[in-house]
Amino acid sequence: MCRKGQGTEYELEDRVDYTAQLDTAIAKLHEEGRYRTFIDIERTRGQFPHAVWTRPDGEQQPITVWCGNDYLGMGQNPVVLEAMHEAVDATGAGSGGTRNISGTTVYHKRLEAELADLHGKETALLFTSAYIANDATLSTLPKLFPGLIIYSDELNHASMIEGVRRNGGSKRIFRHNDVAHLRELLEADDPNVPKLIAFESVYSMDGDFGPIEELCDLADEFGALTYIDEVHAVGMYGARGGGVTERDHLAHRIDIINGTLAKAYGVMGGYIAASYKMCDAIRSYAPGFIFTTSLPPAVAAGAAASVAYLKRTPELREQHQTQSKILKTRLKGLGLPLIDHGSHIVPVIVGDPVHTKNISDMLLADYGIYVQPINFPTVPRGTERLRFTPSPVHGPDEMNKLVHAMDALWSHCALNRAELAG
Amino acid sequence: MCRKGQGTEYELEDRVDYTAQLDTAIAKLHEEGRYRTFIDIERTRGQFPHAVWTRPDGEQQPITVWCGNDYLGMGQNPVVLEAMHEAVDATGAGSGGTRNISGTTVYHKRLEAELADLHGKETALLFTSAYIANDATLSTLPKLFPGLIIYSDELNHASMIEGVRRNGGSKRIFRHNDVAHLRELLEADDPNVPKLIAFESVYSMDGDFGPIEELCDLADEFGALTYIDEVHAVGMYGARGGGVTERDHLAHRIDIINGTLAKAYGVMGGYIAASYKMCDAIRSYAPGFIFTTSLPPAVAAGAAASVAYLKRTPELREQHQTQSKILKTRLKGLGLPLIDHGSHIVPVIVGDPVHTKNISDMLLADYGIYVQPINFPTVPRGTERLRFTPSPVHGPDEMNKLVHAMDALWSHCALNRAELAG
Repeated sequence: MCRKGQGTEYELEDRVDYTAQLDTAIAKLHEEGRYRTFIDIERTRGQFPHAVWTRPDGEQQPITVWCGNDYLGMGQNPVVLEAMHEAVDATGAGSGGTRNISGTTVYHKRLEAELADLHGKETALLFTSAYIANDATLSTLPKLFPGLIIYSDELNHASMIEGVRRNGGSKRIFRHNDVAHLRELLEADDPNVPKLIAFESVYSMDGDFGPIEELCDLADEFGALTYIDEVHAVGMYGARGGGVTERDHLAHRIDIINGTLAKAYGVMGGYIAASYKMCDAIRSYAPGFIFTTSLPPAVAAGAAASVAYLKRTPELREQHQTQSKILKTRLKGLGLPLIDHGSHIVPVIVGDPVHTKNISDMLLADYGIYVQPINFPTVPRGTERLRFTPSPVHGPDEMNKLVHAMDALWSHCALNRAELAG
Repeated sequence: MCRKGQGTEYELEDRVDYTAQLDTAIAKLHEEGRYRTFIDIERTRGQFPHAVWTRPDGEQQPITVWCGNDYLGMGQNPVVLEAMHEAVDATGAGSGGTRNISGTTVYHKRLEAELADLHGKETALLFTSAYIANDATLSTLPKLFPGLIIYSDELNHASMIEGVRRNGGSKRIFRHNDVAHLRELLEADDPNVPKLIAFESVYSMDGDFGPIEELCDLADEFGALTYIDEVHAVGMYGARGGGVTERDHLAHRIDIINGTLAKAYGVMGGYIAASYKMCDAIRSYAPGFIFTTSLPPAVAAGAAASVAYLKRTPELREQHQTQSKILKTRLKGLGLPLIDHGSHIVPVIVGDPVHTKNISDMLLADYGIYVQPINFPTVPRGTERLRFTPSPVHGPDEMNKLVHAMDALWSHCALNRAELAG
């Protein structure tokens, strides 16, 4: 950046005021009430969802986390932690390289085998996150299938949007879950061109399900590949945690399944599961796979232990669903504008970024309840919300406190009840 | 994918043969001799660079790793491992959320403070990898500075190229380290448009340094921001490991410093260090930061311990440089075509993908020496190479074995000596 006072003849004045431009970008967020302040929390192993919040003034306050994505509490499961400890002791901290250059270990191989088995696919491919798995895979597919058109649900996750946009490949955006619209778009394109339909099983902000079977039918009819993001479903749906595609017996009709190890599995990392040839081509052509250090062996070990554990623990999935049903029933009983599509996610619409942030702030400071406001661009403007994620480790006391606090605040803020309920 | 035999009227034949297209993509790699086979290795804590290779036939063979990026052996340093164990015990496995939604912990804050201090910047921002730090930051800057032109060194890392390309912002590619060419490009553009010059401190494949001071001078002259990738330098150069910009007292002239926690620091993750306003804007606008689960607390804890340790341990940096000098001197003594720009990286050019792979295979199978062949697209075609990364934990015996093996194989394969030496 041009620094004043260093005395070259060119510096009579800064030609571009970069600091002012940064100020403008940040001010825009404040004006729209969607500037994000990170809440600094510390979980204590075994105590989750209880945690300690370090307030901006440095004081510490006990809180209950109601917005985490550690949906089943696996982040503190002894089986997972033991596997991480063992791997650190056995092999050390990082992997020391990319997958191709000294960074492939038995831990990565075992986890990939565990995931392939989970989804009934030939193989799986690990990425450092499900974000990069989506981005890297979707942006690489047009290299493998020249002329590929990607048909993408309009509410797909940011990482899918980024992957579809990158490299300027052909894309068509279909209205959310609108199979008729997708059909129109498919019919309008050359039948001999490669196609891929990309969608999610559970859309995390409304908690609604994608019409997977109908989308697969369309894919068959038009000769398209299918790509599903099961990030908010793996571990939580299906007999062994294989997601909604396992629950609905549709996994064999999906060409590429994307999942995460950072939510229900409680650790970190992402993956795709697919045919051997598909994964072989993606790993060979995707810069986001090739040019980055692989996951630490301890992370891979913890994730593998978690996946294996949840395969054999359906009761945790049942408890999770029960908790969501109870919370929804109770919030509905208060007439709060709740969206309920039968999934585990509990979104309560406020509809204004400033109100949403205020309620969130009061819940945290006055009630020790931590639920982050969800604003644009995560959700469309006008649908700002609080999004609760009850889990098997939230007890009846915590649930009581949450319901009473929401009731009190809704009255205090004179907010509408049930107007926007889905 | 359209599956035969499901009997709809549309399925008389597949219109697109996706499997054949995958076969074509993979066959191309085999034909060019650059199909990658992952080597499955297991490090034993405390024994690195010794490891165990599981051969494709299932047999295990002891090997010495000569191509890792755990440059200083920090991946097995007890200080790092202890910090990871403690964090797993204290807080659990994953962070359970994005930075904004329950995924900011004291571990993340401490690591960011450690990194800001390392580079003398106001603050730092963690990403899940340096790859995504480059990609997300460089692709977000045009949103903050409308009309931004990015001037990018032609040999910048894939993650920088991806970031510069994404979103279709304006870019100019200057010839590698060619300050005169960069000047020409800057002179040809509107002086009142925002500009950024993006480059690396150490280019990892040739091991040469960027002309940082001259690039900063140009940035001052033309009122451009500066962005440096110090991924192959942090921890290894500078009095406290702040990279080449610390060694050369240039950090204050760089607007954004990118670094990794996965190489010299031996763990995982990446970051940028910059002004408070710059980091605040990036964290607010970059999808690759916003929409992904934060690093596990144990990873952040291990990385923070590693950064702090290397700040106070210059002798490890000195040993590292000494090891590289010894290896280079000995390989040069054999007349091998070595590139030597005075950095820690030791590339030996073979110049053909098939020969490179053959030598690598023989080193591994016959000598227990693991050095991965480096092929296109990691390096330009015709410059395929073996790239050695000696470290303080490689002893004199390992070095002797490597030198003798290279000498024997060079004769055996009748390869040229010194022709391509830089």
